[in-house]
Amino acid sequence: MTAYELISKKRDGHELSDEEIAFIIDNFTQDNLPDYQMSAFLMAVFFQGMNDRETMSLTRSMLESGDIVDLNEIPGIKVDKHSTGGVGDKVSIVLAPIVAAAGVPVPMISGRGLGHTGGTLDKLESIPGFRVDYSIAEYKEKIAKIGVCLIGQTPTLVPADKKMYALRDVTATIQAIPLITGSIMSKKLAEGIDALVLDVKTGKGAFMQTYDKSVELAKKLIAVGEQFGKPTIAYITNMNEPLGNKIGNWLEIEECIDALHGHGPEDLMEITHQLSGAMIYLGGKADSIEQGVSISKEIIQSGKAYQKFLEIVDEQNGDMTYIQSPEKYKKAKFISEIKAGQSGYIQSMDALEIGLTSVSLGAGRQKSDDIIDPETGIVLHKKIGRQIDSDETIITIHTNKENVIERAKQRLLKSVRISDAPVNNDRLVIEKLDKNSI
Amino acid sequence: MTAYELISKKRDGHELSDEEIAFIIDNFTQDNLPDYQMSAFLMAVFFQGMNDRETMSLTRSMLESGDIVDLNEIPGIKVDKHSTGGVGDKVSIVLAPIVAAAGVPVPMISGRGLGHTGGTLDKLESIPGFRVDYSIAEYKEKIAKIGVCLIGQTPTLVPADKKMYALRDVTATIQAIPLITGSIMSKKLAEGIDALVLDVKTGKGAFMQTYDKSVELAKKLIAVGEQFGKPTIAYITNMNEPLGNKIGNWLEIEECIDALHGHGPEDLMEITHQLSGAMIYLGGKADSIEQGVSISKEIIQSGKAYQKFLEIVDEQNGDMTYIQSPEKYKKAKFISEIKAGQSGYIQSMDALEIGLTSVSLGAGRQKSDDIIDPETGIVLHKKIGRQIDSDETIITIHTNKENVIERAKQRLLKSVRISDAPVNNDRLVIEKLDKNSI
Repeated sequence: MTAYELISKKRDGHELSDEEIAFIIDNFTQDNLPDYQMSAFLMAVFFQGMNDRETMSLTRSMLESGDIVDLNEIPGIKVDKHSTGGVGDKVSIVLAPIVAAAGVPVPMISGRGLGHTGGTLDKLESIPGFRVDYSIAEYKEKIAKIGVCLIGQTPTLVPADKKMYALRDVTATIQAIPLITGSIMSKKLAEGIDALVLDVKTGKGAFMQTYDKSVELAKKLIAVGEQFGKPTIAYITNMNEPLGNKIGNWLEIEECIDALHGHGPEDLMEITHQLSGAMIYLGGKADSIEQGVSISKEIIQSGKAYQKFLEIVDEQNGDMTYIQSPEKYKKAKFISEIKAGQSGYIQSMDALEIGLTSVSLGAGRQKSDDIIDPETGIVLHKKIGRQIDSDETIITIHTNKENVIERAKQRLLKSVRISDAPVNNDRLVIEKLDKNSI
Repeated sequence: MTAYELISKKRDGHELSDEEIAFIIDNFTQDNLPDYQMSAFLMAVFFQGMNDRETMSLTRSMLESGDIVDLNEIPGIKVDKHSTGGVGDKVSIVLAPIVAAAGVPVPMISGRGLGHTGGTLDKLESIPGFRVDYSIAEYKEKIAKIGVCLIGQTPTLVPADKKMYALRDVTATIQAIPLITGSIMSKKLAEGIDALVLDVKTGKGAFMQTYDKSVELAKKLIAVGEQFGKPTIAYITNMNEPLGNKIGNWLEIEECIDALHGHGPEDLMEITHQLSGAMIYLGGKADSIEQGVSISKEIIQSGKAYQKFLEIVDEQNGDMTYIQSPEKYKKAKFISEIKAGQSGYIQSMDALEIGLTSVSLGAGRQKSDDIIDPETGIVLHKKIGRQIDSDETIITIHTNKENVIERAKQRLLKSVRISDAPVNNDRLVIEKLDKNSI
């Protein structure tokens, strides 16, 4: 067996055996298969795809490239959530305390932001003192103690993915469904879950821009999860406008605090309760997803979610006083308002462009070693469907860089379309998929 | 413009501009574009192809990556031949002296053997003293003096191809028609030709195994040649059995000497005269290809081709006495005969397998730094369609390695199929294509 033969085989549309896939992944991870052969292989997979068995096999080889966390000694059904990422998507930070407060342990290993979408870790780290770099042993201790822990990838979990992702990122092979599936599922399976809820975004600000591709990805993710014996539910949700009103790290934490106090924006709460409800159901603490959603809402109303969040912040070395008094957080140097300029109804908002603009303000990374300004970002005062007057402020920007303000304002104004006629926004949660859908 | 954007663009099936193709080729040649991005790009080209304009642009960028030989000071229309390579294909060595003797200058830069096909340079170097490593200045001098020179690639001609070919060879991206076209045509255009004749092989022992693919390649080659203002004629020829009776470096030179004396095997001579005729026509020394073919035959009959070959050998430092008395050449240590084992008619011969077996005997390279035994190889006493008796010798093998003999005999016997019923062989020269065909 040689890498050349396996590249040719996939290139010609043939199915690879488990041994052949393991040969590629193992040798690549151990630096025995050069990047230039791997990138040719990845591009061949982009064009020829992989069937469910191959995708399962890819996921297993990636998973087994490193350590796999064993949470069996912690009682309960451990459930995590994964989102394919969107602009303003802060759901994890509201959902994790809700689900943990419902008695379902939440092992959550998250990523950082790159490109137009932010990362949960960056948002959490905007809380002074908050640490996400705990060891696996500490991660297990914290889940056992308070039912939840939110950390970043460790070098020993799925090293294959780290190497593959870096190569895919520079060779235009990110957007291949079997590779996305292997990457997401190997990381989730490595963190010690028993069940999984997925939020597969669709639309302009999403990773998968078309509905069909989003459904295809969701089905592959469910197929792999179920084959590993982990019940998996996926929601297809709309990412045609940013989620919630705030984009930027600390700004999003502020919005999460509001949400935990019961004052979250409608769209954020709809998705949060839906996903939390499914997690509470999969965690065995509700008889149906609907009941799970009711429990989720009660946990917010009762203040238990907020209390759990304070517990998380405290346990992960964060300064709780900023959660209790968010107004004391340092503000960005320049805060500038954008007026609508015309009356009417907001017809569309370009989530991708808004995400990219927030990066230009300091809220994200263009390169992986860029430093983030946690207090910068964008506040959307109006969302799709809302009526506006021409002199009304629709957006506020927060930045420390004076020279980017004018360009950012132009981009944001262009990213919002205003219509004379009333507009109905699209449904937010489009579809639920589970093992019966595949 | 970034490599990432151009990989994505080609991956998604869009046409690349001249500037974009030049960006890729120039940066790769100058080591500013890493191998892993180039291999992803090459695989994207494998799947999405390139139109005629892109292929032309690719060829031009490759051509301009190095020096271009200028033969304008040499009078006459300079014509070369290129073959996509086959087992036992020694046509260049018979054809070059014929065409030069007809008064058409032949600038011929050839390659070495790798895999199952031999290389013209290796065959020529089996003549004691023969040199193929002349500088471009010496190459020009020799063409001016005797009308022909046969040398190897120099490092300054088409460096882009050298680097690209090495990468394609290990990433399963050889078989992409635009890339093959760019590789062949950039090298031929760099050597100083005014016109070109192509021999595109098809069938089991060929680079392009299907007829349709061979025609597609021939058309692309013609399109590029004509766009560069170089009249180009292509023949599709059959490679279902080896060409001629001898395979192996000095064995093939022996067969060429016979051919130059007018005793060449029928199939070898048919292709040689057809291609020589086309070259003589393109070189302005005949009014039609048919007349060119007649001239080619006369030049063999009159002994002028043999005389020109002696002149070439002498000019390129070879020992003419071996051409005059080939029997004095050292023989391989082990010469072993293979009997048919059954009576009947030869139905098929697996040229690919015969080529690979000749490599195992010492006649070729498995790796690019392997050393060739010039006196080793295979002699086929019977070809497709010939009637044979079971105790008749059909093949003789020549090798210096005793331990490979038994395995080679088994492989060769298996590569020949014998039928009870008479067999008609396929037509050798299948089709002629020129600018009116594209």
